[in-house]
Amino acid sequence: MADGLVLSIDGMGGDHAPDIVVEGVDIAARRNGGVRYLIHGDPARLGALLDRHPHAKAASEVVVAERAIGMDVKPSQALRQGKGSSLWGAVAAVEEGRAHAVVSAGNTGAYMAIAMFRLRTMEGVHRPALAARWPAANGGYVVMLDVGANVQADGEQLVEFAIMGEAFQRAVSGKQRPTVALLNVGAEEQKGHEEIRTAAQLIREAGVDIDFQGFVEGDDISKGTVDVVVTDGFTGNIALKTGEGTARLVGQLLKESLTSGVLAQLGALIAYPALSKLRARMDPGTFNGALFLGLNGLVVKSHGSANGRGFAAAIGVAEKMARSHYRDEIARNLQRLAQGASQAAKEAS
Amino acid sequence: MADGLVLSIDGMGGDHAPDIVVEGVDIAARRNGGVRYLIHGDPARLGALLDRHPHAKAASEVVVAERAIGMDVKPSQALRQGKGSSLWGAVAAVEEGRAHAVVSAGNTGAYMAIAMFRLRTMEGVHRPALAARWPAANGGYVVMLDVGANVQADGEQLVEFAIMGEAFQRAVSGKQRPTVALLNVGAEEQKGHEEIRTAAQLIREAGVDIDFQGFVEGDDISKGTVDVVVTDGFTGNIALKTGEGTARLVGQLLKESLTSGVLAQLGALIAYPALSKLRARMDPGTFNGALFLGLNGLVVKSHGSANGRGFAAAIGVAEKMARSHYRDEIARNLQRLAQGASQAAKEAS
Repeated sequence: MADGLVLSIDGMGGDHAPDIVVEGVDIAARRNGGVRYLIHGDPARLGALLDRHPHAKAASEVVVAERAIGMDVKPSQALRQGKGSSLWGAVAAVEEGRAHAVVSAGNTGAYMAIAMFRLRTMEGVHRPALAARWPAANGGYVVMLDVGANVQADGEQLVEFAIMGEAFQRAVSGKQRPTVALLNVGAEEQKGHEEIRTAAQLIREAGVDIDFQGFVEGDDISKGTVDVVVTDGFTGNIALKTGEGTARLVGQLLKESLTSGVLAQLGALIAYPALSKLRARMDPGTFNGALFLGLNGLVVKSHGSANGRGFAAAIGVAEKMARSHYRDEIARNLQRLAQGASQAAKEAS
Repeated sequence: MADGLVLSIDGMGGDHAPDIVVEGVDIAARRNGGVRYLIHGDPARLGALLDRHPHAKAASEVVVAERAIGMDVKPSQALRQGKGSSLWGAVAAVEEGRAHAVVSAGNTGAYMAIAMFRLRTMEGVHRPALAARWPAANGGYVVMLDVGANVQADGEQLVEFAIMGEAFQRAVSGKQRPTVALLNVGAEEQKGHEEIRTAAQLIREAGVDIDFQGFVEGDDISKGTVDVVVTDGFTGNIALKTGEGTARLVGQLLKESLTSGVLAQLGALIAYPALSKLRARMDPGTFNGALFLGLNGLVVKSHGSANGRGFAAAIGVAEKMARSHYRDEIARNLQRLAQGASQAAKEAS
């Protein structure tokens, strides 16, 4: 059932590329036979891998790219010297309309710089944002943004993030009316940075069409108090990494506990299936796929250390986004925001 | 072995006061017979509890306070109407030299406001900071500050936090040379907010005598990459709460997994002693006791929901700080910072 969806894949980006990329495409191709993949990279290495992954091979076309951008290349360097790389080619395929979305596990800074340079920001968006998903106690996944695209964000930008994150959450979770809140240090209106209070006021006054719940705190992320948590890229990056670090610590301590003696080992062996379920739930691979929101094109970022299953999850995010109406939804709300913001500016003057 | 140490205790502060307060004093008194406690609060209720806790009774004196400050009272209200409360009296005992440190599980904002008003900040400190401890993969506890006293901090204030946090870590852990770093979104010098880069430069140029390691990221907190993580109160509060929330989520998912079937339950039963060790390690009660650093007096904050053991841990922090030389250590480094900062200002003008 070919449905015409084409995804552009950076074959050489990430710690374990190209192996996990082809593996991921294979898993995704088995899951959904209708999608075509343009895999950019070294034809010899990709060809050899595709020979071992028949589902991927049947659904893919290799696009030759002479080289890969290393994980430690700086964004400015990537812009100057990136042309001809697999990452550059993968992004260009979206720009030129040959693909509906691009997926890469490569260098985040380089990816973002090239995507911004080639695709430009959507009308009405000041700065794009990086949105990630995080498991929540209610069984779903919270969308958090910005998790690192911009170090700072003013009130209006935070509202743009809220609008984009809400549409992202709807597209990936199918929830029709995701709840949204701003990350703060307390639920009271007078707390936190001024830009957060400005954003809350703007959302309310501009009549932005989202289910806005006010402020939440750090522990609300894992609780799943709301579906979308909005913050600036500095705070979001630190919150995400602190959460990841804590999950890893608890996992490590659990492992140490359950191998600390014969009884503990026996218990762990018996409880093994239950413990694997827990591991799958907390494994970033199962909810892999961050999104650069706000560009003229869908740009999905896989964890650099993802395995094949993780890369397939990132492909899944790209598929869902490409099939959604997120762009129209965002455009409508951005227009409301622009009207509300200019109204507020008029009243202030 | 009476050693003259006197601790001032808010008997009525916290979700489960006065019960857990007297319980905590009892545990602490059993552990260390030399300390005296001034417990501020309702003499009838405290007296009845002390009758059931002989160790606490033998070491304590009740100081009458007519009322308690509720957990939802605002800081400004607490300042206006707080006189006569157990919290006010407990802080005043330190101010008036009748006790070496104060411990309360009460309303954080009210506690901070009253402590600042009564004790004032140390010379050379612009704003006090709230420092918390967090378990790390290396078996120790990381000190993180500020976790919520100030929403913002400039470069010089961040250096003051670094100096105070380092002395706190040495006093509670016994580590002679704790390592210190600034929390940032990347390890590179050019990343993050300007105030963080300013702070790094100031520490190096002013010759502040701490083992400064540059920048760390969110996941380094749980890794224990350094002993002291320095950030502003907004970021620190969100990082701490995100970490707590994640630990709680993993704990909840683990519990769900291990009760999800007969085999899982059997495994959990067999591995029970190992799992309890894990729980103790992640239980905030075992590393309870945040510190308001930078005041003319030792002010320890217990979690509002702490149990008796947790309150005893907070008392332990107060004991260790009171027996340490943190004040001289801080004063020396603050002087270096002041000289370095004025030198930098001179060069800039």
